[in-house]
Amino acid sequence: MINFETSPAEYRHWKLDVDGPIATLSMDVQEDATLFDGYKLKLNSYDLGVDIELADAVQRLRFEHPEVQVVRVTSLKPRIFCAGANIYMLGTSPHAFKVNFCKFTNETRCAIEDASAHSGQRYVAALNGTASGGGYELAIACDEIYLVDDGNSAVSLPEVPLLGVLPGTGGLTRLVDKRKVRRDRADVFSTLAEGLKGKRAREWGLIDDYFPTSKFQEAVASRLRAIVEADGEKKALRGIKLNPLQVEEGADGRDYKYVSLKLNREKRYADLTVRAPEGKTPTSIEEIEKLGDTYWPLQAYRELDDALLHLRINELETGLVCLRTVGDIDEVLAIDKTLAANKDHWLTREIILNMARVLRRLDLTAKSFFALIEPGSCFAGNLLELALSADRTYMLNDPETKVEIATSELNRDAFPMSNGLTRLQSRFLAHPEKAVEVFNHDCRFDTEEAEDAGLVTFAPDDLDWEDEVRVAIEERTSLSPDALTGMEASLRFAGPETLDTKIYGRLTAWQNWIFQRPNAVGPEGALTNYGKPTQPHFDYKRT
Amino acid sequence: MINFETSPAEYRHWKLDVDGPIATLSMDVQEDATLFDGYKLKLNSYDLGVDIELADAVQRLRFEHPEVQVVRVTSLKPRIFCAGANIYMLGTSPHAFKVNFCKFTNETRCAIEDASAHSGQRYVAALNGTASGGGYELAIACDEIYLVDDGNSAVSLPEVPLLGVLPGTGGLTRLVDKRKVRRDRADVFSTLAEGLKGKRAREWGLIDDYFPTSKFQEAVASRLRAIVEADGEKKALRGIKLNPLQVEEGADGRDYKYVSLKLNREKRYADLTVRAPEGKTPTSIEEIEKLGDTYWPLQAYRELDDALLHLRINELETGLVCLRTVGDIDEVLAIDKTLAANKDHWLTREIILNMARVLRRLDLTAKSFFALIEPGSCFAGNLLELALSADRTYMLNDPETKVEIATSELNRDAFPMSNGLTRLQSRFLAHPEKAVEVFNHDCRFDTEEAEDAGLVTFAPDDLDWEDEVRVAIEERTSLSPDALTGMEASLRFAGPETLDTKIYGRLTAWQNWIFQRPNAVGPEGALTNYGKPTQPHFDYKRT
Repeated sequence: MINFETSPAEYRHWKLDVDGPIATLSMDVQEDATLFDGYKLKLNSYDLGVDIELADAVQRLRFEHPEVQVVRVTSLKPRIFCAGANIYMLGTSPHAFKVNFCKFTNETRCAIEDASAHSGQRYVAALNGTASGGGYELAIACDEIYLVDDGNSAVSLPEVPLLGVLPGTGGLTRLVDKRKVRRDRADVFSTLAEGLKGKRAREWGLIDDYFPTSKFQEAVASRLRAIVEADGEKKALRGIKLNPLQVEEGADGRDYKYVSLKLNREKRYADLTVRAPEGKTPTSIEEIEKLGDTYWPLQAYRELDDALLHLRINELETGLVCLRTVGDIDEVLAIDKTLAANKDHWLTREIILNMARVLRRLDLTAKSFFALIEPGSCFAGNLLELALSADRTYMLNDPETKVEIATSELNRDAFPMSNGLTRLQSRFLAHPEKAVEVFNHDCRFDTEEAEDAGLVTFAPDDLDWEDEVRVAIEERTSLSPDALTGMEASLRFAGPETLDTKIYGRLTAWQNWIFQRPNAVGPEGALTNYGKPTQPHFDYKRT
Repeated sequence: MINFETSPAEYRHWKLDVDGPIATLSMDVQEDATLFDGYKLKLNSYDLGVDIELADAVQRLRFEHPEVQVVRVTSLKPRIFCAGANIYMLGTSPHAFKVNFCKFTNETRCAIEDASAHSGQRYVAALNGTASGGGYELAIACDEIYLVDDGNSAVSLPEVPLLGVLPGTGGLTRLVDKRKVRRDRADVFSTLAEGLKGKRAREWGLIDDYFPTSKFQEAVASRLRAIVEADGEKKALRGIKLNPLQVEEGADGRDYKYVSLKLNREKRYADLTVRAPEGKTPTSIEEIEKLGDTYWPLQAYRELDDALLHLRINELETGLVCLRTVGDIDEVLAIDKTLAANKDHWLTREIILNMARVLRRLDLTAKSFFALIEPGSCFAGNLLELALSADRTYMLNDPETKVEIATSELNRDAFPMSNGLTRLQSRFLAHPEKAVEVFNHDCRFDTEEAEDAGLVTFAPDDLDWEDEVRVAIEERTSLSPDALTGMEASLRFAGPETLDTKIYGRLTAWQNWIFQRPNAVGPEGALTNYGKPTQPHFDYKRT
């Protein structure tokens, strides 16, 4: 079972140093510290274990080191920055693992861009050696890229010419859409195994600048200082500690403090329940800072994130997740009120941004989601987003029992989807006025009001509820899991497209397709044959 | 070999009737008139042969019947509009054919939307019976959808629940992005094999209205008349005839009047050459109307279109197309000047729109394109778009010989790509001012000027030219064809996304992925097992 929790003291592949406003994330991959047997992580190549540490570091920089204004990403290996995802690991992994691996690494790179855009932590790639494949894709997720000019070091995307697959971590999309490299040059670069060095790389927009070896460290340091200066001095912020999550692992589930995951493995679905806080929650920043990572919206969403990652990678046969909530709507709304009132404070801002990222992780999870709204549930404010994320929502219509959902200020704009819209905007693309009307209504909706407002899919009464939900679950889990994945990827993200949706929609789909092609993964495919004395053989039919 | 040319007199599956401003396209598929053996086209299901006729009809309506303001799409079979793509045909087709089939049918549906948006020919789907799968996808490509309410007829997308594949012709995208159906309802609809009938279908936005059998024909007719009335009377336009293309087919190529396709099969690349008109071309509408389909910009682009389709479906192993032009730049610019001066006349408008569609067909072709600009070539104006469409452009730099390219007014906005941008805008996303500067320059560029302006990728001198081009061709054709397809799909369409790019990028890529999955096409897959007494068996791992 793969564990997604780690901390700097446990890192085997990265070093995180913080020096006032400047942090340095140094890659120094231990060849033998792999997640699976059968490959060595040479030349700073990575597997999922390496990326779990990177994701952890990016997350900790935001919560534990809010004083940091710029992060240098570099390597401790001489002449090599990073050789990208390990080819032997990819070559020996099953299809589903490859796909999940790429998705997680993509989310880590999007988290870097999220930190830069919203947390005032800029990322600078200091390429002290060659950055190839996923190595260059990591660089291109940073705001600026500097390359050493040592006569040898280059940036490259050798996947197409060497491996017969795509750069799978957003490289092609960022090339033309983020750095806006001219498409014919992007074509040349992406088919040139050896890549490009300093001068031409800068001319083509692949890097921002290059410096000779003797001046490289100082030139980068000077650029980091300039970014800090231009940013202005931050107030002396003191971070909070992210402690390990406490989780009770059972044979058929995981129990955290606020989140429970119950696996119905035989029926291939899971119940994922989030519990509201109980009792009084803090209203002042001072109290929140004191609670730190035990503050409900941080702890509950960290637990939810961990549960989602666990479901994705360790529970492949689970096709459907029933989202449930338990607790008092008022308590959830009180949390949102406090968050909204303090949204300009760095800590509450980070807590909200993290909730938004976890919700996007849910949107991007290749499982079906049904939200089940029953008496005692609390789909309110931030937890209403779970229902709005779901592929379908069932809400009990029972005149005898109060069943309600509720909105909060945070549903207005705090949790953008990957397409840049709120979930209410996405839902009401045809009728934007309905997204507005929702907020003109008193914040609580009983079942009929929720149905009228278009917030739920079905509202069975108490006689039908049990059967209807059971049949829906049975039907869903009987369908082809692949067709559902493609269908959900198409239906969840209507409206505008962004760099993120292009990466998770278009690029990922093409890569998944190629990851199945005999030309890549067949016995004579390029990925299979990499590093072997045999040559790949292609079926040259163009498709 | 599949032939893409047809005409109404040869149709076996469609009837085209024109009654003043109202045309009727009636589907009446002949079960036995299939393109291949092994299946019957029951219930108005279709194969590529049926769609070639539809594409021809849509094209002819624009050129031969410009007086038509609204097109009714209906069926002559009782109780069935169209059952979609034939499942047995799909189940027995190789992967590459399935992909090419879907791409062509997608282009036909986009051509319907193009006619509605730009040619003033609205499309109304008159569903006199059930429209399922590709049948409903054809309906949703129309502007309006009316369904008979006979107690039985429904609209449906049963691909996911019945076949384990996606609706492959834009259905999912148009559901949420064109008709903006709420995503949870789209989820329910797309997993409900039997679909939805009148009332709920209208409530959910799947159709515009429904009428009882006794009133159906009259209600639709009345809606057609209303569209014509609202549109206002068109001048009495007289169309031109689209005659069959004259093509000489040889063992290693095809020669049309203005287009030649030469296949170098052993080396897996083709030379595709377009020749400029020779001598005086007309400048007045009267002369153009007299020339009709022999007018160069219409004939040359019809020939180019046919050659591209031929390459796609009949020459699968050709991975690279070298685009060449031969002729006098002045002659090409004279054509563009005439077209630009008369762009508001219906015929020149249609000619320009057709050129734009053919160029988009080129953008969407899964082959690499290199443009080769040599002495005697005429990459000017509309033909410059070929160079701008190419993945790379090589222009000879020879001080002894004049080599030039040139722009015309038509490069400004006449030929939008699928992403809505011109090819110059797409090329210069990072520097929009460069797209403007190109037009401030005198229209002709020699090699150095073209390179400075960013219009070509490489400009080898005459000593290097032959080797550099030869090596580039050899390298390109040695790479994995699948990786190239995914790479090109990612690099060609930077910038904004549209319904079209979503269909050809995201949806197509997911469908291609699913079309390879054992759950669909394996011995126990749903597509393979359709109609057999055996049940499909799924590997339920979610990916």
